[in-house]
Amino acid sequence: MAACELLSSSSSQYSAMGKFRIQGSPVINLSEIVPSSSNVNNNIDDTTVNKQPSESPIQVTEEQKLVWLGAAKEAARLAGKEVRSAFYREKTVTMKSSPADLVTETDQNVEKMVFSFFRRKFPTHRFIGEETTAAGVPIELTDEPTWIIDPIDGTNNFVHSFPFVAVAIALSVNKEIEVAVTYNAILDVMYAAGRGMGAFRDGKRISVSGATDIKESLVVTTAKSLLTPTKMEDTFHNLRALLEQGRGIRNLGTAALNMCQIAEGAAEVYFEFGIHCWDMASGALIIREAGGVVLDTAGGPFNLMGRCMLAASSMDLAQTVASGLRHDHKKPDTVEPVYLRSTKD
Amino acid sequence: MAACELLSSSSSQYSAMGKFRIQGSPVINLSEIVPSSSNVNNNIDDTTVNKQPSESPIQVTEEQKLVWLGAAKEAARLAGKEVRSAFYREKTVTMKSSPADLVTETDQNVEKMVFSFFRRKFPTHRFIGEETTAAGVPIELTDEPTWIIDPIDGTNNFVHSFPFVAVAIALSVNKEIEVAVTYNAILDVMYAAGRGMGAFRDGKRISVSGATDIKESLVVTTAKSLLTPTKMEDTFHNLRALLEQGRGIRNLGTAALNMCQIAEGAAEVYFEFGIHCWDMASGALIIREAGGVVLDTAGGPFNLMGRCMLAASSMDLAQTVASGLRHDHKKPDTVEPVYLRSTKD
Repeated sequence: MAACELLSSSSSQYSAMGKFRIQGSPVINLSEIVPSSSNVNNNIDDTTVNKQPSESPIQVTEEQKLVWLGAAKEAARLAGKEVRSAFYREKTVTMKSSPADLVTETDQNVEKMVFSFFRRKFPTHRFIGEETTAAGVPIELTDEPTWIIDPIDGTNNFVHSFPFVAVAIALSVNKEIEVAVTYNAILDVMYAAGRGMGAFRDGKRISVSGATDIKESLVVTTAKSLLTPTKMEDTFHNLRALLEQGRGIRNLGTAALNMCQIAEGAAEVYFEFGIHCWDMASGALIIREAGGVVLDTAGGPFNLMGRCMLAASSMDLAQTVASGLRHDHKKPDTVEPVYLRSTKD
Repeated sequence: MAACELLSSSSSQYSAMGKFRIQGSPVINLSEIVPSSSNVNNNIDDTTVNKQPSESPIQVTEEQKLVWLGAAKEAARLAGKEVRSAFYREKTVTMKSSPADLVTETDQNVEKMVFSFFRRKFPTHRFIGEETTAAGVPIELTDEPTWIIDPIDGTNNFVHSFPFVAVAIALSVNKEIEVAVTYNAILDVMYAAGRGMGAFRDGKRISVSGATDIKESLVVTTAKSLLTPTKMEDTFHNLRALLEQGRGIRNLGTAALNMCQIAEGAAEVYFEFGIHCWDMASGALIIREAGGVVLDTAGGPFNLMGRCMLAASSMDLAQTVASGLRHDHKKPDTVEPVYLRSTKD
C-alpha cells in the first residue's frame, strides 16, 4: 500500500468526541510516513517539473504533497523551537494598530526564518506572511505555489505567556490549499492535513464531532478588545444567541488553534471576524479534511481573502449559527475573492 | 538546609511573564523534595498527634504540609490517570441543574477513588466533594483536617474532550487551606502550593505577573450559558468595561485552571460568579502563594463559601475591576463564611 493510500484511508477515523472512532485499523503516524523533505528532493523546486502552460492549472501529485507536508512540519518545528525559547523570556513588544494589536521581534524573526527555509527548498515558490504584509508588501495570491504563513498566531498570548501560540503554515497551489500545518509551539502539538489525505494531530487521524444541534455544542469565538460601541453591541448580539442555547463559550486567543478545536471534535462551532488569510489558511484545510464545514460568516462559500470565517462540525449547525449573526465586514485581503473548493468538489 | 526552608525560599521566583524572574538560584523540583506519602507516615493519621484541646487550633508543621502535599499530588496523578483514560472514550453523561450542567460516571468514580485514597492514608480526615454534595451530603467545614475535592473541574470540557480538565484538591486545617494541587490531567501539568511555602508548576516556582493596569491585562472569565435575560445583561455589563480597556478575554472553561493562569502570570485578572468551594479552594492558595490577590467579587475579603471570586496579579488591579462589576449573589455553600487569611496575616 502506497503512503498516499495509507494517508487517505478513511478506516482509522478518530474523533476527540469518541463519536466517530471507527475501529479496526491502526493509528497512522504521519511523521513515519511522510519523508523529511531534507532527504527527498532537497533544494529542488519540485513544482517546475510538472508545471503546465499558463492556461492550465499546475498538476499536483500526492507524492509532491507528501514532500511539501514534510517540509511544512519541519519548518513549523524549527520555528516552534524559536517561539518556545522566547516564550518565557522578557519580550520586546511593539504596538501595531491598537494597544491590543502587538508584534514582537520573535514574530518578525520567525517569519524570516520560515521564508528562508522554504526558499532554500523551493526557490521558485512565493510567500504571503503576516509580518511581511505588515511591513508593506501587498498580498498577492496567484496559481503559483505560495506559502501562507503566520509565524506566531496568538501574539497577545505570546506576550502574556498564555500557552496557546501557533505557527501556522499552508501551501496554496492553483489557489487551493494543498497542505497545512498548525503547530502549538508551547504544548508541542502538531495538527496537519493534506488535501484529500485527511487531518491529523500528532500523527493520529482526527475528525469533527459531527454535532448538528446548537444545544449540544461548545462554541469558540473571540470577544475582541477595544471595539467601538456599535461593534461591542454586535459582539454581544452574536454571543447572546449562543449563550442562550449552547453548552458554553471558549476562547484560546488564536484563530489557528481555535480552528483545530473544531477539527478534532473538541468544540463544534467557531466564528471570527477581522482575521486574515494567514490566520485561516491552514485551519480551513485541517477542518475540511477532518470532515467539517468552513464557510463565510453569512453561511456562503468560504473566501480565503474575505476576513471572516465560520467553521462547524456540520452544515446544519453552520447554517443555524450563520443565520443569527450580525456581520462585521472588513476590507478583504485582496479585491479578487479566493474560494477554496472542498476536497469533494 | 531543610526541605521546608528550600520550599519557602524566595530566591528562585519564576514568572511566566518573565518580569519577576530572580536569577541566581536553581529551579526547585518539588517532586524531588516532597517525599511520597506512601513512604512517610503511611496509614497514620498524622494530625491527631498534634491535636490540641478543642479551644486551641490544631498545630500544623511544615513537615506535615510536605506529607500532605505529597499525598495530594499522588492522589491527583492517580485520579488524572482515570480522567485521561476516559477522556477520549464515549462518555455517559447525566444532566444536573441544566443542559449545560453535566456530570459523568467518571466524575463520580474519581471522587470515590480520591476519598478512598485519603481515607486509607488519613483515617480521621474529613471530606467535601462536588459529587458527594450533589448526592445530598451537606457541606460542613470544621477546624478538623478536611480534603476539599473537585474530581473533574471542567466537566463540560471533559464531555466535549476540550483539553482543560483539572483534578483540584485542597486540604483545610483550622479553616485555612494548607496545601493545594490543581492537576491538568490531559496536558499533564501539576500546579501545587503549600501555605507559606510558595507555588509551583511542575516543580518550578511560579509568580503572578504583577501587572497593576487593566490596559496591560489579559482577563479570564466565563460567559455562562443558559442565563436569564437579566443575568445575561449583567454578564455583558461586566464584559464591557474589560473589553473596552483590557488586552483581551480568555476562557478555558475550568475555574481551577483559570486560577492557575493568574498564578503563573499568563493572565492578570479572573472573576467568576456561582462557583463552589471545591472550584476555588486549591486555586486560592496557589494564587496567593504566587504573590497574587484573591478577594470576593466586590473587592472584600475572600469567603471560601461565598460562591464568587476575584483574583488578580495585584491589589490595585483587583480593586479597579471589582469597582466595575455587577454582582450575581448566590446562596453561599455554608451559612457561616470562611475567610481565608493570606500567608502574611
